[in-house]
Amino acid sequence: MEFFQYLPLSEARARVAASLAGIIIGREAVDLPGALGRVAAADIVAGEDLPPFSRSSVDGFAVRSADTFGAGESVPALLAIAGEVAMGGEAPGALRPGQAVAIPTGGMLPAGADAVVMLEHTDRPDDATLLVLKVAAPGENVVAKGEDIAAGAVIVGRGTLLGPQHLGILAACGHCRVPVREKPAVAVISSGDELVDLGLAPAGGQIRDINSHSLGAMLAAAGCAVTRLGIVRDNYHDFLAILAKAVAASRLVVISGGSSVGARDYTVKAIGALGAPGVLIHGIAVKPGRPTVFGMVGAVPVFGLPGHPVAAMTVCGQLVRPAIRSLLGETAVEPWSVPAVISRSVASAPGRDDFINVRLARSGGRYTADPILGKSGLISTIAQADGVVHIPADKSGLYSGETVEVLLIKFAQ
Amino acid sequence: MEFFQYLPLSEARARVAASLAGIIIGREAVDLPGALGRVAAADIVAGEDLPPFSRSSVDGFAVRSADTFGAGESVPALLAIAGEVAMGGEAPGALRPGQAVAIPTGGMLPAGADAVVMLEHTDRPDDATLLVLKVAAPGENVVAKGEDIAAGAVIVGRGTLLGPQHLGILAACGHCRVPVREKPAVAVISSGDELVDLGLAPAGGQIRDINSHSLGAMLAAAGCAVTRLGIVRDNYHDFLAILAKAVAASRLVVISGGSSVGARDYTVKAIGALGAPGVLIHGIAVKPGRPTVFGMVGAVPVFGLPGHPVAAMTVCGQLVRPAIRSLLGETAVEPWSVPAVISRSVASAPGRDDFINVRLARSGGRYTADPILGKSGLISTIAQADGVVHIPADKSGLYSGETVEVLLIKFAQ
Repeated sequence: MEFFQYLPLSEARARVAASLAGIIIGREAVDLPGALGRVAAADIVAGEDLPPFSRSSVDGFAVRSADTFGAGESVPALLAIAGEVAMGGEAPGALRPGQAVAIPTGGMLPAGADAVVMLEHTDRPDDATLLVLKVAAPGENVVAKGEDIAAGAVIVGRGTLLGPQHLGILAACGHCRVPVREKPAVAVISSGDELVDLGLAPAGGQIRDINSHSLGAMLAAAGCAVTRLGIVRDNYHDFLAILAKAVAASRLVVISGGSSVGARDYTVKAIGALGAPGVLIHGIAVKPGRPTVFGMVGAVPVFGLPGHPVAAMTVCGQLVRPAIRSLLGETAVEPWSVPAVISRSVASAPGRDDFINVRLARSGGRYTADPILGKSGLISTIAQADGVVHIPADKSGLYSGETVEVLLIKFAQ
Repeated sequence: MEFFQYLPLSEARARVAASLAGIIIGREAVDLPGALGRVAAADIVAGEDLPPFSRSSVDGFAVRSADTFGAGESVPALLAIAGEVAMGGEAPGALRPGQAVAIPTGGMLPAGADAVVMLEHTDRPDDATLLVLKVAAPGENVVAKGEDIAAGAVIVGRGTLLGPQHLGILAACGHCRVPVREKPAVAVISSGDELVDLGLAPAGGQIRDINSHSLGAMLAAAGCAVTRLGIVRDNYHDFLAILAKAVAASRLVVISGGSSVGARDYTVKAIGALGAPGVLIHGIAVKPGRPTVFGMVGAVPVFGLPGHPVAAMTVCGQLVRPAIRSLLGETAVEPWSVPAVISRSVASAPGRDDFINVRLARSGGRYTADPILGKSGLISTIAQADGVVHIPADKSGLYSGETVEVLLIKFAQ
């Protein structure tokens, strides 16, 4: 019930999206191998036809298809062998009627030829004579010039996240340098009087800073250049100073709050103090993740995430990740989800979006989703998770045996 | 039919796996942020309990639960407020019977206390007096020392591909340096008289080298340190020289053949010439991918992939990728697959494993898989693919409307 006072997730997403509309990272050109995992900053166009010439797709003889009209096992067409095409070489002169030229797979079709007869469908009574045992249709066993990609075609759309297959097609068209979006500079800060840096031993009452590493890695995997600014103590002066530094040097700032109420208040106050438009979201109806803050300092989005590591990662995935896609001009993609049968019932309050970490198991061609429960403070739960089940705000829970969609979160390469 | 003379995919996989058994890459230690996407080289153990002390999971008062026995709205338990716990500080002295201490979320529970009463369930008639309006059960609102992770527990198993969640749990336990597998040095070579390097303009009959880039990117994404050795011409002397160089400097070699039969013969001959055990696979019953060669030169696996870019990527995913997992000692993972309704029938020859590239579309909560057809020479088909449908050797095709499993291949971050 209490959740009705917080912003629904759908509205939070819309508010973040609206705040970032029109803000986009600059572009740079990188060498082709360095483009892997980057986002194309422009529509990339084929400068030439691919293949650049009509080529044979089999080993055989290039012919004029009309010369094989009516040919069969019992009535072969008789052609004169007029040389051969070398791999990687220019085709010899134009094929005249009644002629055939030997051609390897990938070889360049001579002018005049419009088909290739496979070796298996020929006989050679002597070196100069070819018997064709089967009709060749026009275009048979030929990949025509430009058939794969026509000059001028867009081969990779602006906003595409570039994978190996895109690098292949860019290589095919001779793109040595690729226009991509710069990696957004993102600052990550952890706040809390109880936190100590990774290298130090916690004294009584202290715990180690987890979020700088888990959130930093999520943001790095999302294509950001991450700077970890470390830990800020729970006092407003320090808070304002580090946030000012982060905003000045970054395109996006993520600060995860300590457990204290103070940290959240300082985030809100500091965002407001640094510039308009200031705080735009203060609490979302999401579990885990309620104490989330979002604001803009000029063109720099600032996210105040919960201190709880699982909640921070959940909100980072649901709210920060889409913001990064927006900055990168990355084409929106629905995350893949797999249907799974949930192995036990999970309660949820109406009016609240819940995200449940699950383990996936496969048997008999179906997935089972096993909710990883545990007190909300536990980091061990998320390391075991394969995916997340979203319980939307209009549902009051999940029933054991129900089929749910599992969003895949496991790091995949 | 012709496919029965080639090795079935399942046997090819088994032969590669058996050849690589016991061969594993060395280990190195990296700083925590650099461990993202690497493979853990050892079981990593928690050196201490997490949390390192019993902590409150709410804002409230630490109490002895026995002191709240029978408490309710009408019969509150009356306790003496004996100070407060500071965030990140040691708890004050032990709690005596009849006492309560104010505690923030995440604060350290004092000795003697075994529960926390939420603020909402208390009243404070004066600064020294607490009225508890609800019974606190032992352990209520407390995360006990070691409850998240017990000292000595394995927090990340050997062979785990490290994602953000693993970095989080490693940070929680203070692991600054992480033992990971070295990145395997992999050499990539393209062969063919018709190929030209990316930066050059193809002359008549020539095409650009695609595979150095598409395969190189697949191998880089799989965690390898890739060296592109460029193009080798179709003559045995050059072939032997570059393969010898590659084998000497690498843990795995991938050479993709030009279209010519010669290139394949040279691969086979050169693998044999370089050392035992030599060629182990010569042709697989896979479409696309039949002209695949595999051999071992000492402890170095050498894959001769087809020249056709789509076939080369298919075999790289199905045969080379598992070999790299094996070298890395990476825990075998089934690739995620989503069920989809196939939008048209696809024929397949029995005795052959087929891999069909598909586009996925989602509507009404289900995926539709749309086969991307086209002549086998076309690189443009793979750039559009979201996934691959595997038609196993014992099936003779797929029927339109049938539900199939789609292996996801789109590069995901």
